[in-house]
Amino acid sequence: MSEDKNFVKEITNIDDDFAKWYTDIVLKADLADYTDTKGCIAIKPYGYAIWENIQNYLDKKFKEIGVKNAYFPALIPESLLEKEKEHVEGFAPEVAWITEAGGQKLEERYCIRPTSETIISTLYSRWLKSWRDLPFVYNQWCNVLRWEKETRPFLRSREFLWQEGHTIHETEEEAKELTLKILEIYADAIENLLAIPVIKGRKTKSEQFAGADATYTVETMMYDGRALQSGTSHYFGQNFTKPFEIKFQNREGKEEYAYQTSWGASTRLIGGIIMAHGDDRGLKLPPNVAPIQVVIVPIAMHKDGVKEKATEIYEELKKKYRIDIDLREQFTPGYKFSDWEMRGIPLRIEIGPRDIENGQCILVRRDIAEKVTVKLEQLDVTIEKTLEEIQKNMYEVCKNRMKEKTTTAVTLDEFVENMTKNQGFIKSMWCGEEACEDRIKELTGAKSRCMPYSQENISDKCVCCGKPADKMVIWARQY
Amino acid sequence: MSEDKNFVKEITNIDDDFAKWYTDIVLKADLADYTDTKGCIAIKPYGYAIWENIQNYLDKKFKEIGVKNAYFPALIPESLLEKEKEHVEGFAPEVAWITEAGGQKLEERYCIRPTSETIISTLYSRWLKSWRDLPFVYNQWCNVLRWEKETRPFLRSREFLWQEGHTIHETEEEAKELTLKILEIYADAIENLLAIPVIKGRKTKSEQFAGADATYTVETMMYDGRALQSGTSHYFGQNFTKPFEIKFQNREGKEEYAYQTSWGASTRLIGGIIMAHGDDRGLKLPPNVAPIQVVIVPIAMHKDGVKEKATEIYEELKKKYRIDIDLREQFTPGYKFSDWEMRGIPLRIEIGPRDIENGQCILVRRDIAEKVTVKLEQLDVTIEKTLEEIQKNMYEVCKNRMKEKTTTAVTLDEFVENMTKNQGFIKSMWCGEEACEDRIKELTGAKSRCMPYSQENISDKCVCCGKPADKMVIWARQY
Repeated sequence: MSEDKNFVKEITNIDDDFAKWYTDIVLKADLADYTDTKGCIAIKPYGYAIWENIQNYLDKKFKEIGVKNAYFPALIPESLLEKEKEHVEGFAPEVAWITEAGGQKLEERYCIRPTSETIISTLYSRWLKSWRDLPFVYNQWCNVLRWEKETRPFLRSREFLWQEGHTIHETEEEAKELTLKILEIYADAIENLLAIPVIKGRKTKSEQFAGADATYTVETMMYDGRALQSGTSHYFGQNFTKPFEIKFQNREGKEEYAYQTSWGASTRLIGGIIMAHGDDRGLKLPPNVAPIQVVIVPIAMHKDGVKEKATEIYEELKKKYRIDIDLREQFTPGYKFSDWEMRGIPLRIEIGPRDIENGQCILVRRDIAEKVTVKLEQLDVTIEKTLEEIQKNMYEVCKNRMKEKTTTAVTLDEFVENMTKNQGFIKSMWCGEEACEDRIKELTGAKSRCMPYSQENISDKCVCCGKPADKMVIWARQY
Repeated sequence: MSEDKNFVKEITNIDDDFAKWYTDIVLKADLADYTDTKGCIAIKPYGYAIWENIQNYLDKKFKEIGVKNAYFPALIPESLLEKEKEHVEGFAPEVAWITEAGGQKLEERYCIRPTSETIISTLYSRWLKSWRDLPFVYNQWCNVLRWEKETRPFLRSREFLWQEGHTIHETEEEAKELTLKILEIYADAIENLLAIPVIKGRKTKSEQFAGADATYTVETMMYDGRALQSGTSHYFGQNFTKPFEIKFQNREGKEEYAYQTSWGASTRLIGGIIMAHGDDRGLKLPPNVAPIQVVIVPIAMHKDGVKEKATEIYEELKKKYRIDIDLREQFTPGYKFSDWEMRGIPLRIEIGPRDIENGQCILVRRDIAEKVTVKLEQLDVTIEKTLEEIQKNMYEVCKNRMKEKTTTAVTLDEFVENMTKNQGFIKSMWCGEEACEDRIKELTGAKSRCMPYSQENISDKCVCCGKPADKMVIWARQY
């Protein structure tokens, strides 16, 4: 590698071509790479470490409300997939089929799970006897496969990693409550770990999960104003428990079908982090989810005592922070600065001979490029405070962007104009008809993202057809 | 469920039919269940919690020596699998093929990974440029698929969970060192977490991993004297790096092929725990890996203050131990005792009205069924000490069994007699010829398990052919 390599020059300008910028970051920040398996990526250690932090956070929150992890087969017999009509229609077109195995053609094809409602429902049906057994609140961390035509790293990969929770309950109320509780966990993780504000809401019927009674979602806004669906939680009612015969003897001794939910969040969240926070200098990671929160770059490393002092600081801070030290001999400090900025490390410590003499170092924030000189005895408290500030500031930047790029529209003309001038979220009233959703999509490319929890009474007419409307919908173009 | 249900009666006697006993435990202790996907199990929450404890332990140890987690595609194009001759011969017969996806027949078939050397090597080849990039020490936690004809839960499942580490290095020495270092991690986890003594050694050529130069293994002995291969670490030399062109510019500026390793441990370890420790009353879990270390069963629960006191103790101990409290109204204490014994909980606390009066409780060990009365103020320290003792004792029981069931044989007659009379491990000298391994297998069903690190000079002749021999091999029937 050349010492003068200019990382910024290698990255497409974010405002010139956001899609190309995105791919540049994925590859150059070492998050993932393309593979010989078309449409599937390899998640490199740096990208995977982000996923591990997301996993740990969610897994802990899930366990706090009683979720237990389990593991179900990745292969689903064709006959099982077909048991719920809407579900099979939703997923069959994009599944991959195993037709041969162990040197023989199979009698029945297996698909690789695109999601696991069917295989899990079959087992729940076998395991459930009495109301005393309920609820089952199980989750699995696994890979799934959906044969997408157009793929993009993290955002839409044929294989991706996720968690899928599947629960059954004694009552409708309990199941619905769990559905919403999970949505709160997703919202909390995305806001507090990933520093991205969310809009919580319910999907319109046309955007619901195949087979669900209700789908709840957390929607986030990316740099370019498009929406990213970042986690969904579904209430199924008895739609699966009836065909799969998941029934139990209730408290009255009568047979009853259980009430079901499922919910998932995936590695697409990594795509969300990239697109919500990144800039022309590369990735920008919120401290709470960053695999490396602080990096130390010694200056004039060959000079007496510099490496030693830097290493001493590193060893001390390592006890508390996720930290790295860059002792690579072949690169200049300038190269290293750009390299770590490109990788999105929230905070950089620069320390050279003169700093050491003065008992200080330089602290550089990735989010606002601010440089401050800090006395070494103040370093620990300053880092702690600064990381908190960065986390908060990154959230605020996204929050402000969402504010600026969210408009209201009362008429269709206004809707089209808003979306053209300022691509983002549009709040509009909707009559409930799918035809209006189709028309808006045709005209603007925007889809209904959700009926947000926080409803506003913008007008009393549908933005599209003008008929009476009492639901406010958030519309946006989407990833 | 009936209140009189006798768990012990429901479990096949361990000495009557060990295979059936094993399946009984898997199902009745709620570890796993069969599914509609032939040869694949669902790992239930209780079984999965054991796996999570194994994962956490290994993952921490791996990270301590610099291993980084990553994720590679589950689908491998057929052309890739075929690049290394021995490897494809070893795995092709048992792979499953995806031939159709997204509604179309595929131009090239994909197999589901039976192991990931090929797909990872392709990427390593692309990522590696200079000696400065080395080593790559990456691992993935994932599912793999091998189309076995005969399957058994945990021990031999078509789909199973594992970790597979794949590394490349600048020098042969460094790669070999890593191979052995990993074996030490497996040995440590199996001995200290699972309380099962191991024998460390190298596989004979016929038992090596397909494509490896050397395979190292940790072998354990089960209740019936059979061996379980519990973790393997392979040194590949340049066997894959040459066909996959994983090369780098070395310190002298010349092109060189890297040196490679891979290593794995899987959910079959759960099978090992069951078969090494279980008894006629069910599963028996070592405290260090038990999802529940202590269970509290209140006696005469309806009596004033019993539930409250038991719950108070539970809340206090919860801060330190993995603990559960059994407040089920529909079961008698006797039923609960058997139930928790069957599930292998190391320690049970019984507490009733009279105990509360006397400020004490009863502590019952699962491993030796010993009951002691403990003053409540001594409870915490007693539990800590007792859990340590149980862990140690369970290890000792296995160690003694291994000692009793390990014999030496100098002649083939002696070998056959030993294996017939006392199925277990046999130490014998071996000339190095595969023909002798085949003959021994034919005669006794025993295979070479490994050439242990601790060699003994039993004789100077091969136990089978009588020719000069300087290697001591451990032989056993295996799972």
